[in-house]
Amino acid sequence: MITVHTWTTPNGRKVPIMLEELGWKYEVKPVNLNKKQQFAPEFLVISPNNKIPAIVDHDAEGGPLSVFESGAILTYLAEKSGQFLATSGHARYRALEWLHWQVGSLGPMLGQLGYFALRARESSPDAVERFTEEADRLLQVMERRLSIGEMPYLAGDDYTIADIAAYPWMMAAATMMEELLGSTWDEVPAVQQWLERVGNRPAVQRGMRVLSE
Amino acid sequence: MITVHTWTTPNGRKVPIMLEELGWKYEVKPVNLNKKQQFAPEFLVISPNNKIPAIVDHDAEGGPLSVFESGAILTYLAEKSGQFLATSGHARYRALEWLHWQVGSLGPMLGQLGYFALRARESSPDAVERFTEEADRLLQVMERRLSIGEMPYLAGDDYTIADIAAYPWMMAAATMMEELLGSTWDEVPAVQQWLERVGNRPAVQRGMRVLSE
Ligand SMILES: N[C@@H](CCC(=O)N[C@@H](CS)C(=O)NCC(=O)O)C(=O)O
Ligand SMILES: N[C@@H](CCC(=O)N[C@@H](CS)C(=O)NCC(=O)O)C(=O)O
Repeated sequence: MITVHTWTTPNGRKVPIMLEELGWKYEVKPVNLNKKQQFAPEFLVISPNNKIPAIVDHDAEGGPLSVFESGAILTYLAEKSGQFLATSGHARYRALEWLHWQVGSLGPMLGQLGYFALRARESSPDAVERFTEEADRLLQVMERRLSIGEMPYLAGDDYTIADIAAYPWMMAAATMMEELLGSTWDEVPAVQQWLERVGNRPAVQRGMRVLSE
Repeated sequence: MITVHTWTTPNGRKVPIMLEELGWKYEVKPVNLNKKQQFAPEFLVISPNNKIPAIVDHDAEGGPLSVFESGAILTYLAEKSGQFLATSGHARYRALEWLHWQVGSLGPMLGQLGYFALRARESSPDAVERFTEEADRLLQVMERRLSIGEMPYLAGDDYTIADIAAYPWMMAAATMMEELLGSTWDEVPAVQQWLERVGNRPAVQRGMRVLSE
C-alpha cells in the first residue's frame, strides 16, 4: 500500500496519475496548502522542503520508504514497476532529461508566472513580463520537440514519466493561456495534440480528479 | 570520450566535477552565454531548451548519446559508472530526492534571486523580497537536513550526485550571502561544514576550475 500526501495543484496530480496508470492501490492524504498544512511537523519528516507531493511506500524493499519531490517519486514508481521508463539505453535518458526539464524549468517558471500575474501584477510588472516570456519560450521548446520528427510523446515513441510530469502543468498553461500567456493555442498545435493524446488516457482522467470531487 | 558543453556558471560546474570524480577522459566545449551561443542551431540539437550543461557520450551503449539537463546527465554518468548513486534501495531514492530538490528548487530560486537582485532591484522590490525569502528558506531546509542526525551528506552517509549538484549552487549562495541573502553564515553551520567537506575533494576543486583559467 502506498500513501500519497498531495493537494489539488499541478505537482499534486502527477503521482495519482502514475498510480492510476499502474493500477496500484493507494490512499490519498490531503495536505491543505491553504491551511499551511505543509508546515506540520509530521509532514516535514517525510517532506523536509514543505511541499507536496510526497509518498510513503509501506511495502518497499528494505522497509517503509518515504520519498518527496515528484520527479524522484515518479522515478521510484517506474523503477519499482518496470513501467513508463526504459531500464537502460537511449530511451531511458530521453525520458529523464524531459522529466528534469519539467521539474527544473516548466514547473518553477509557470509557478512564478502564476504567482506574479495573479498576486503581484501591479507591483511587479518586470517579473510578470519575465515569467510570461519564459513560459512562452518553454511552450515553444515543447512544440519544437513534438513537431520535429512528429514525436507522439516527450521522450519519443513511448509514453513515459516525462509526459506524466508535464501533463498537469501543460493543462495549467492551457487554462492560463488566454489570460496570462502571450502565446495562443494556434501557435502550439503539436502541444495541443499531445494534450489530447495524453488527456484521453482513462488513468490520466482519474488522476486529475483526485481530491477534486 | 565524452564532450561536455558548458560554461562558468553553477549549473555548468556539476558535470565537470562528476567527470573528475570518475577520472574519465572528457573534452570541454565552451558555450559562451554572454555571446548567446546557447541559441546556436548546432547546440539546440543536443540541448533543445537552450541551456548548458549538455553532453555527448561518443561511446554510449547503442551509439553516441546526447543528454541535456544536469540532473539527467549526473544520473546517466552515475548509472554508467555504478558510482555516486546506489543502484537500488532507500539510499538510491534519498539521493534522487535531494537531486530533484536542487534541480527544482535550489537552482531556479537562487537563479531568480541573482537576476532580480542584480538586474532589476529598483523596478521589482517584491520579486527581490520573494526570492530572498525563498533562498533563505532553502538554506534552512538544507541546514536542518544535515544537522538532524548529523548527516555528512545530503543523502546520508555517502557522497552522491545530490551533493555534486548542490555544491556549485551553495558556493554561489555563500558568495551572495553577505550581499543578497538575509541569512548569515552563522545560522547555517552544518551547511558551512558540508561546503568544506565537499570542497576539500580534489575532484571538486578541479571541476570548479574548468574554463576559469
Ligand atoms: N519540485 C517539486 C515542486 C513541488 C511544489 O512546488 N509543490 C507546491 C504545490 S504545486 C507546494 O507544495 N507548495 C507549498 C509550499 O511551497 O509551501 C516537485 O516537483 O515535487
Ligand atoms: N535545470 C537546468 C538548468 C540549466 C541552466 O539554467 N543553465 C543556465 C546557466 S547556469 C543557462 O544555460 N542559461 C542560458 C539560457 O537560459 O539562455 C539544469 O540543471 O541543467
